[in-house]
Amino acid sequence: MLKIACAQPEITAGRPDLNTEKILKLIDEAAANGADILFLPECAVPGYLIGDLWEQTAFIEDCEACGQDIINATADNDLCVVFGNIALDKTKVNEDGRVRKYNAAFVAHHGKALGNGKLPYNFTVKHSLPNYREFDDSRYFYSLAQLAAELGTTPDALTAPVEINIKGQTVKLGIMLCEDGWTDNYHFNVPQALARAGADILCNISCSPFTLNKDAKRHRLFGAQAEEAKLPLIYCNNTGIQNNGKNIFTYDGCSCVYNSDGTLSAEAKAYAETVLYFDFDCQTKKINTAPAIAEPADRTAAIYKAVRYGTQKFLQQLGITKMVVGLSGGIDSAVTAALYADILGPQNVLLVNMPGRYNADLTKDMALKTAQALKTNYMVVPITESVENTFNQLTQTLVTAYNSGTQFNLSISPYVMENIQARDRGARILAGVAAVFGGAFSCNSNKSEITVGYATFYGDICGAVAPIGDLWKHDVYALGRYLNDKIFATPVIPEEIFTMRPSAELSPEQTVGNGGDPLVYPYHDKLFALFVESWHKTSPADILRWYSKGTLAEHLGCQQQLIDETFKDAAAFIADLERWWKLFCGLAVAKRIQAPPIVSISRRAYGYDHREAQLTPYFSREYYKLKNELLKK
Amino acid sequence: MLKIACAQPEITAGRPDLNTEKILKLIDEAAANGADILFLPECAVPGYLIGDLWEQTAFIEDCEACGQDIINATADNDLCVVFGNIALDKTKVNEDGRVRKYNAAFVAHHGKALGNGKLPYNFTVKHSLPNYREFDDSRYFYSLAQLAAELGTTPDALTAPVEINIKGQTVKLGIMLCEDGWTDNYHFNVPQALARAGADILCNISCSPFTLNKDAKRHRLFGAQAEEAKLPLIYCNNTGIQNNGKNIFTYDGCSCVYNSDGTLSAEAKAYAETVLYFDFDCQTKKINTAPAIAEPADRTAAIYKAVRYGTQKFLQQLGITKMVVGLSGGIDSAVTAALYADILGPQNVLLVNMPGRYNADLTKDMALKTAQALKTNYMVVPITESVENTFNQLTQTLVTAYNSGTQFNLSISPYVMENIQARDRGARILAGVAAVFGGAFSCNSNKSEITVGYATFYGDICGAVAPIGDLWKHDVYALGRYLNDKIFATPVIPEEIFTMRPSAELSPEQTVGNGGDPLVYPYHDKLFALFVESWHKTSPADILRWYSKGTLAEHLGCQQQLIDETFKDAAAFIADLERWWKLFCGLAVAKRIQAPPIVSISRRAYGYDHREAQLTPYFSREYYKLKNELLKK
Repeated sequence: MLKIACAQPEITAGRPDLNTEKILKLIDEAAANGADILFLPECAVPGYLIGDLWEQTAFIEDCEACGQDIINATADNDLCVVFGNIALDKTKVNEDGRVRKYNAAFVAHHGKALGNGKLPYNFTVKHSLPNYREFDDSRYFYSLAQLAAELGTTPDALTAPVEINIKGQTVKLGIMLCEDGWTDNYHFNVPQALARAGADILCNISCSPFTLNKDAKRHRLFGAQAEEAKLPLIYCNNTGIQNNGKNIFTYDGCSCVYNSDGTLSAEAKAYAETVLYFDFDCQTKKINTAPAIAEPADRTAAIYKAVRYGTQKFLQQLGITKMVVGLSGGIDSAVTAALYADILGPQNVLLVNMPGRYNADLTKDMALKTAQALKTNYMVVPITESVENTFNQLTQTLVTAYNSGTQFNLSISPYVMENIQARDRGARILAGVAAVFGGAFSCNSNKSEITVGYATFYGDICGAVAPIGDLWKHDVYALGRYLNDKIFATPVIPEEIFTMRPSAELSPEQTVGNGGDPLVYPYHDKLFALFVESWHKTSPADILRWYSKGTLAEHLGCQQQLIDETFKDAAAFIADLERWWKLFCGLAVAKRIQAPPIVSISRRAYGYDHREAQLTPYFSREYYKLKNELLKK
Repeated sequence: MLKIACAQPEITAGRPDLNTEKILKLIDEAAANGADILFLPECAVPGYLIGDLWEQTAFIEDCEACGQDIINATADNDLCVVFGNIALDKTKVNEDGRVRKYNAAFVAHHGKALGNGKLPYNFTVKHSLPNYREFDDSRYFYSLAQLAAELGTTPDALTAPVEINIKGQTVKLGIMLCEDGWTDNYHFNVPQALARAGADILCNISCSPFTLNKDAKRHRLFGAQAEEAKLPLIYCNNTGIQNNGKNIFTYDGCSCVYNSDGTLSAEAKAYAETVLYFDFDCQTKKINTAPAIAEPADRTAAIYKAVRYGTQKFLQQLGITKMVVGLSGGIDSAVTAALYADILGPQNVLLVNMPGRYNADLTKDMALKTAQALKTNYMVVPITESVENTFNQLTQTLVTAYNSGTQFNLSISPYVMENIQARDRGARILAGVAAVFGGAFSCNSNKSEITVGYATFYGDICGAVAPIGDLWKHDVYALGRYLNDKIFATPVIPEEIFTMRPSAELSPEQTVGNGGDPLVYPYHDKLFALFVESWHKTSPADILRWYSKGTLAEHLGCQQQLIDETFKDAAAFIADLERWWKLFCGLAVAKRIQAPPIVSISRRAYGYDHREAQLTPYFSREYYKLKNELLKK
């Protein structure tokens, strides 16, 4: 019977010094607790999302030196330590000409790193390199598949468990790294190859970011692997946050073990920096714990946990302890304000209401009530006068045309005035107040707005971080309810904010009570999710085909009535689709390029997760055919 | 003797409809001109930098349909057409579970697409997939190497030329795609494998962006390949621009042919949408043209050509015909203004001088003189009053602390006032004026500033495009000279702008004549280039080691005297290095995340070309050791 420890430390990307210090403490702790084997996550030394810092030789050499420290730390105890690190082969290069790098798992025992006997290395090499969503593995790492081709052999011939001798018995650890376990679409199945090669237990060390509902899929897939191999499968994942510039990902840990019958047998708490202990019977190849029960996921609770953790850790990393939020009296800013009050304490949050000519007493009152209920700092900074001054200055200043020797004045349209108001709020007031208050200011944009660029450059789509930038409008409302009910247990967000129709309040047409946002959120939220979140990227042709066949409601997951009530005919439906599709592929891309980092929780967040070029919108041949048919009817 | 046509059309990324229309015209033209074979670039149908649009099935099916139209267009003539397109295999998936996609070359003749007889397809599959800089090939395409592994064979066994029968003789075309020819670090050499397999001529179809000095490297490498294979090598590359969101790349075409002795034998004009014709003797396997002479590259001329083309085409794509530039009287804005005047005509450019409290008469005068010399539109919009109003409004508005029931006022530091001025200029005036003038405004940041974030969020690091964002300060000065001497042939940029010390003019300390920018550009330009542009990413440890050994000047390419004069001792040197390194890895990353797209011309531009996470700055073990040694001395 072996005692196994599975740690899920909070890894700091790009800081091998801090991570190694933490790992050395975990080794002491596990040894003191009598553990025989300690598992640590993939890339536990360097972190994973570090961008092109992987190219800096000094950095990766430091990671190697830290790894040696960890190996050395096993010299004077009986603990076997499995950990992820970058591994170098300085005699070879990657295909980009830089030093050969592997995403590797080290098995350290009695001061030595142990290989699997098949590879020319004393570490295990990751086979399956993900190159989708935020993953850029092939940019940095050489895969086992590439190495096999280089050596003139196959991945299978290089795959074997790592043998350790512990308590007088030989145990064969079937080591793999993260994507190696997500076997759906790779033609080499790493876990089953390890099982065939005689592994006693399968061990997946990961650096796997949280995504809504991913845990359920992992339980299904990894459980099935354990069952097929008739071996337990350990899943070891880190906590903390890592970012790729545009996206902030949370790592929930949730390390666990699946028993040899596929059942989930022990699971660490999400987002907790903890160590999971359990016993492994080498004879029966079984884990000796009672089955764990995977918690049924409440969507809003899961979202709040991830958003709160991601925002909190990101602010900590940047050293931001105070936040300023522009409070309009609408749902987005109210939810954001409550989030920061929960994270930082209300005394460290300054809410700023910035009424202009078109703001209703109702929303001004809602803003005040929110600040009072949250017990934050609050100020009202009107923009009417400054916007008027800008109007006067720009229209009254003569422009000299040196080309023709003439002079003229500029004249300002109402649409331009809308954006001048938004920029006055964001870039003049909020950025200024944030600097003065000693903190940063928040971007309150939600995913529905970001999809179609319903925001003003340097106005409302700016700030240090967009905590609700990966949430659809309906998720924002749900989060508001959750904050009132569960977090504050009092209606910090006034009821009217939930019931009034959202409006930007930037023109006589856009006021509360007199026309609101141009988006019908219950419909457009679902439509936009198809644009960006569906795996095969739903196109306008798909939408039109489904509309034409009467199956669109089913694909959207809404009632047919909603579609019928929103669009009086096919022409109206098509005009709406083209309007938003053109914005989604057009101006909204330009805005996203300059948008703040987004706390990312969905299966597709804007940023490096969803890469995009500024293109001209494209409609396929099928689209035009369907459109013509529909309009002829 | 065969007549070969090599076309370098301007490809529009994401628009297979437009590209196909253009290709069909080129087919008619080449046939009418008596060509036997027409070469077209890699990804000529879809374009290449289209981000995750590759995931949209409707889009790639349209590309396939367009490809079929091109194949059909060869049915009624004798022309053989070689073109790049995406190729699908709907019976298989990529490793991400999406439909199998190859970056492929099609050889179309007499209405049929011809395979090489080894692959199970009627197209040639790209072997070498680049995953560095802006390239994400493995994210979207399945490689020949992966396919070989899947089929249980080797890339060599699947590689062969494509045979065509033309004018009664058989010609074997050794087809490869772009990176297949950049053989340095791949263990399978595609061109030599094609030669071994009997190719009569090597043909590299590419979609290869311009990079300073890349042409010289290509001439060396491709010439050597031709010589080794004893075969001519055709290089076919497109023109136009493509972007990945953050970077705008120019494609210079420069299609050419290397003769069988490795000499450059015909070359198309850079950035010209043209067709190169030449004769190929199938018997002698030689190209019948006089050797072409590779133009010696003048760095500044090459930079201007690329920056002008990239900026012009990007504005065209966005439909922007008018530009607004904030004109400070310094070199960056003067160069930018002259660039737009050259591109759009001076009547479509509005220069805005925005003096505040700290602006000198000298710079105000320089701004006016620049506008007059360029004959643009010009206006002066002072910010003194609006900045004072903001100061008063923010400091006089009471903040209520609902946590404690108290009230307080905010107080503003001089540093905060600097940024308030910058934002007043960028977000209030320029963004407003641009909208009113009916155009966009420009970001004038250069690469030196962008490296260390010497810019204000929503102030000067904003706008639709950063045309000089990939140019070091010394390149900007050189471009200023070039504009005066070569483009305008008159000093549109006044001499004083070249000779005065640059200053942000944002505080009493930062004025012209009284302390300027904190950067010593001749030194810091070179230092920062090592940070970001060196292939193995120079680290602070490298810099310190070279400084310690007295070899830093050599690595920087500057005089030792410059280093000695800039830093009185090692402590001053180290303090400077750490100051800028921390900014480079820290706050500057946050600013780059929200920065506008950069016209990219160097071997490493900020954006998707240089991917980065927001991390805490890291110094390696060696760095601390060297630092301690140096400070002890």
